[in-house]
Amino acid sequence: MIKDRARTETYREAIMQHQSFIQGKVVVDVGCGTGILSIFCAQAGAKRVYAVDASDIAVQAKEVVKANGLSDKVIVLHGRVEDVEIDEEVDVIISEWMGYMLLYESMLGSVITARDRWLKPGGLILPSHATLYMAPISHPDRYSHSIDFWRNVYGIDMSAMMQLAKQCAFEEPSVESISGENVLTWPEVVKHIDCQTIKIQELDSVTARYKFKSMMRAPMHGFGFWFDVEFSGPASSPAKTSSGISVASGSSSVSPSREGNQKKRSNPSDALVLSTSPEAPPTHWQQTIVYFYDPIDVEQDQVIEGSVTLSQSKENRRFMNIHFEYSSAGRSFVKESVMR
Amino acid sequence: MIKDRARTETYREAIMQHQSFIQGKVVVDVGCGTGILSIFCAQAGAKRVYAVDASDIAVQAKEVVKANGLSDKVIVLHGRVEDVEIDEEVDVIISEWMGYMLLYESMLGSVITARDRWLKPGGLILPSHATLYMAPISHPDRYSHSIDFWRNVYGIDMSAMMQLAKQCAFEEPSVESISGENVLTWPEVVKHIDCQTIKIQELDSVTARYKFKSMMRAPMHGFGFWFDVEFSGPASSPAKTSSGISVASGSSSVSPSREGNQKKRSNPSDALVLSTSPEAPPTHWQQTIVYFYDPIDVEQDQVIEGSVTLSQSKENRRFMNIHFEYSSAGRSFVKESVMR
Repeated sequence: MIKDRARTETYREAIMQHQSFIQGKVVVDVGCGTGILSIFCAQAGAKRVYAVDASDIAVQAKEVVKANGLSDKVIVLHGRVEDVEIDEEVDVIISEWMGYMLLYESMLGSVITARDRWLKPGGLILPSHATLYMAPISHPDRYSHSIDFWRNVYGIDMSAMMQLAKQCAFEEPSVESISGENVLTWPEVVKHIDCQTIKIQELDSVTARYKFKSMMRAPMHGFGFWFDVEFSGPASSPAKTSSGISVASGSSSVSPSREGNQKKRSNPSDALVLSTSPEAPPTHWQQTIVYFYDPIDVEQDQVIEGSVTLSQSKENRRFMNIHFEYSSAGRSFVKESVMR
Repeated sequence: MIKDRARTETYREAIMQHQSFIQGKVVVDVGCGTGILSIFCAQAGAKRVYAVDASDIAVQAKEVVKANGLSDKVIVLHGRVEDVEIDEEVDVIISEWMGYMLLYESMLGSVITARDRWLKPGGLILPSHATLYMAPISHPDRYSHSIDFWRNVYGIDMSAMMQLAKQCAFEEPSVESISGENVLTWPEVVKHIDCQTIKIQELDSVTARYKFKSMMRAPMHGFGFWFDVEFSGPASSPAKTSSGISVASGSSSVSPSREGNQKKRSNPSDALVLSTSPEAPPTHWQQTIVYFYDPIDVEQDQVIEGSVTLSQSKENRRFMNIHFEYSSAGRSFVKESVMR
């Protein structure tokens, strides 16, 4: 993941942008991995960086820190944030905690724990905010490749395979790269997270109602999800919109020209944003698509509405259940999907 | 895998090439999957085709057969070849049984069972022969991308990560596509299989000694494996070489001009060959590479020798152990690898 340049370079830029705050301060890096973000913070002038990771990679992180002559500044702690001891308050929490679809296997819970255990009032959390978006998508090539293929295979009618093919291809969410062209209308916010105030209980189950108006006539194949995170300082928190929800920064926008009543945050702080939208530079997170088993033909201006609920699976707490309720043009259905 | 055109089209061509033998005969398709090979055989004029598959795909295969109006000719049997009953002898066995590196998760055992249970003397097995090859390879780009990357990551010395990176990247065999350019010399045969005579016990453990003479000066990164299968009829079995081993058909050759004493089969029968060599059209099998943890600089004409043993893992009978003994220019070592 360190090879994801968009990710690593945005983090470095964010650290450098907050250098005046970080200088001489104490930092904790939650889930430090190879230690690269801790080293960036040390390079930015941090007095001390606690680099915490529960996995064995902490052993390598310690070596990396040593090889770069930073052992006096960067203290690698091999353990969970719940278990390790830090005997001082910290000024800054940095973490690359985001999972696919933002919340799948995310480490946000550890960031919250670190915040509640060690962060000084007025401290900085990087990233400061995260937003998960969804939008209806059309992806005829992908559908055709996976499903229509079976209509005629070397001259043989294999359409009997199509039901199974749909199950194999579309039962689970798919992490893949789509383009702005695949998106039928502006995204809506599924969940906006302020890392200073989010509570762990809020993440058990996230429900959002959605209401889209298709900007074109097209076969709709499902919903796409992506997210962005924002790196704004405590003094420059973005203004809330009147609805109380901060919505889509510019980098999450998609190609069709904006119409209708969707909200767009003006991003007054000009905070740095790492976006995983179809129109942003590619990242290892790509986008996550929940496909329907069959395409739905939607007309221009057709309203598509319903709700989506993301919750921890009872089968395995690492898994994420995605429950859709969909209703449009007199047709409604439910789709359940599990991200394993 | 049905989308692998090289595979499916070669099978169809092989069936059509043996049409005069197949016409009016009884065929068994071992591991029929979607039933496509069974349908090809029915189209070629088989009297009856038993399409056997232990997996639930047999249910779809039955539907596909029905949709193509072949239910009277193609009998789908949902079960293992060890368990299903066929109350007549068969003239032809067809099967797409090959796994990665030919033998990993292969269904050759089921083909042998079917042969011993049902095949008439003088019957046809398609493919008739299979050969696994190996050759030393050089792949600096891949090595550099996985390992050298860590020498300087955004200006930070992360070489402490290299040992772990080598383990992650090169502990297990890697299924990937290489080109003829990556191959240091002509391949040698690891195992040649005559499907008419092979015994199941021979597959428990396969050992081959190898002796290569590098055709160039290059860093050697490991060994590549690939295979071909041949579709020759009972009346046109290929001649054995004087050593008793049939060796590399033309399609497995690699780019450098042939020198030295390697054997090359003249393929007198002009039998159809499906090759997965780096120079053949790509297939879903690609090639399998066992990388060393560190490259070895070899000189032109340097002799590389040793042995390789492929055997069933004791940890899990589906896994394959690969044991290498390597010796060259006074240096020798052993590498163990498990294909999971």
